[in-house]
Amino acid sequence: MAVKGKKWILAKLFEEEPKLSDFQIVEEEISTDLKEGEVLVEALYLTVDPYMRGRPYKVGDTLIGEQVGRIKESKNPSYPKGTLVLAYTGWRTLTLVSNPDEKAVFGTLVKRLPDFGDLPPSLGIGCLGMPGLTAYFGLLVQGEVKAEDTVLVNAAAGAVGSVVGQIAKIKGCKVIGSAGSDDKCDWLKEIGFDHVFNYKKRSVDDALKEFAPEGVDLYFDNVGGDFSYDVMKSHMKFAGRIVICGAISIYNDAQLLTERSTAMFTIYKQLTIRGVIVGAFVDRFPEALTKMLQWVREGKLKYKESITEGFDNMPSAFISLFRGGNTGKAVVKV
Amino acid sequence: MAVKGKKWILAKLFEEEPKLSDFQIVEEEISTDLKEGEVLVEALYLTVDPYMRGRPYKVGDTLIGEQVGRIKESKNPSYPKGTLVLAYTGWRTLTLVSNPDEKAVFGTLVKRLPDFGDLPPSLGIGCLGMPGLTAYFGLLVQGEVKAEDTVLVNAAAGAVGSVVGQIAKIKGCKVIGSAGSDDKCDWLKEIGFDHVFNYKKRSVDDALKEFAPEGVDLYFDNVGGDFSYDVMKSHMKFAGRIVICGAISIYNDAQLLTERSTAMFTIYKQLTIRGVIVGAFVDRFPEALTKMLQWVREGKLKYKESITEGFDNMPSAFISLFRGGNTGKAVVKV
Repeated sequence: MAVKGKKWILAKLFEEEPKLSDFQIVEEEISTDLKEGEVLVEALYLTVDPYMRGRPYKVGDTLIGEQVGRIKESKNPSYPKGTLVLAYTGWRTLTLVSNPDEKAVFGTLVKRLPDFGDLPPSLGIGCLGMPGLTAYFGLLVQGEVKAEDTVLVNAAAGAVGSVVGQIAKIKGCKVIGSAGSDDKCDWLKEIGFDHVFNYKKRSVDDALKEFAPEGVDLYFDNVGGDFSYDVMKSHMKFAGRIVICGAISIYNDAQLLTERSTAMFTIYKQLTIRGVIVGAFVDRFPEALTKMLQWVREGKLKYKESITEGFDNMPSAFISLFRGGNTGKAVVKV
Repeated sequence: MAVKGKKWILAKLFEEEPKLSDFQIVEEEISTDLKEGEVLVEALYLTVDPYMRGRPYKVGDTLIGEQVGRIKESKNPSYPKGTLVLAYTGWRTLTLVSNPDEKAVFGTLVKRLPDFGDLPPSLGIGCLGMPGLTAYFGLLVQGEVKAEDTVLVNAAAGAVGSVVGQIAKIKGCKVIGSAGSDDKCDWLKEIGFDHVFNYKKRSVDDALKEFAPEGVDLYFDNVGGDFSYDVMKSHMKFAGRIVICGAISIYNDAQLLTERSTAMFTIYKQLTIRGVIVGAFVDRFPEALTKMLQWVREGKLKYKESITEGFDNMPSAFISLFRGGNTGKAVVKV
């Protein structure tokens, strides 16, 4: 026996913004003669998320993604017929899954939908699913949010941003959100954001001068590009924290994505990047110097000086730094 | 009474790489009739450091920086005549300091040189001064170095890099350094680096494939630009750490500095930037969902769904994401 399902495959590789003509819908025949362990999943709700843009597809690949589905047929006792599941099976109406417990990007290929009681099951791909969890762990773990923080989030009316802002409010923060329409801004005010602005009408510079005159402690970034540049240039507090969750402003620009931005590497590898400016540690200089002096005396820390003689030669000693002229410390002896 | 000192001022604003003609030496008369609290500092050793390139000078400004000096005249009991000091007084041979305890970039304008015993006092602006301390706090505090780390440092034969690599060795790490000449590389091997490469002869990609096939845990960056891009793209371990200390590759390029790089903001504000990828937290999903479900039930976490009807409309729902079409979560209902 067999049933007919549909799937969306890539007809052409994305160039800049995805177009309808990049996609192709295909019918497929799926056997219902299941082997031991197999399940047949029927899609109820499918998610579309910006991250799907960035994967290294080939022409003909099925678009990736998660769905809330129902087990239509089963030869797997862990997932009996009728079970509601989350399945990372791509843009498909029907999927035969040979091994539901195979590892996938958000855990296993198939897993039971958590029990949401009377709430809609679609929340499993929304605020109680991947986007909501991204907000949760991004803000609480990676962002180490604190009650006194001034938090900025962009794409704030989106699936992740709207949860970020609300969790920050639950934690006691002052929350500023940006979105791209007045309707979105209205909704954000309704759900408790302290300040919102429509970035198409007002620059982030201008808005933050008013809403965060003392700077931002925690910037949750879904957008990247110029927005982030402006925030980093002028609006972060000293020792501020930035969580990079997405960079939707550059997903459709191959040049920005490949030549300018390290945001995607920071996300995929979940890197921690920190600046260092020694002036911030002045109080701890004595402790450090005691240790370092000891290392020098023990021969564990060796030094070399590139000494230039004469105050009159300071500029040439300085210029030489940019030409690799010094080994060890460049010093001018008067 | 008065004495004559010399100072270096900026004759022209820097464009690209500093040139000798950008600098001008000037004689100045300095009164030796000191008022209460004042000291006259005579320079012994002056430091030149790449960071001096990046300050917002005006024409006529004295170049900034620290020196090891000796108190030549004093009306301040804390700094009697003959005391060796560190003074943040710029490129000057003689400086009258009205208030030695005024706050400056590395503590106070004048401070006693720590007692190095028989070691040269010039170390106070070297491995036992600002560059050494930058390495210390950058690696230990900002980088949270651990014994099992594979550490990469560039400009490794420089004042900061050479200390970074040696402290990492003291802490038990595997240390890889890059420098711009074979002589520098030889010295780095001598002082205990595990692997070194001359980046002018060998790409960082190629070198790291050999020296860090499993990736880099901690990248201490003094260089920025393409070097950093290549490291971030292909050689960081998951959850790796990057300390940004400098970006010498872009200091002399106004376009790179102002249009491309957020490195300087990360340094000056000592920011922490972290990626988030929710798949890394799969084990903690149940705990998070319990919490979030509770927030939804309490009305603290509200949601909105932008539902598109019909599997056939998935591409348009997806495309709409990049045009701000959704408020809340974009979902497709089959």
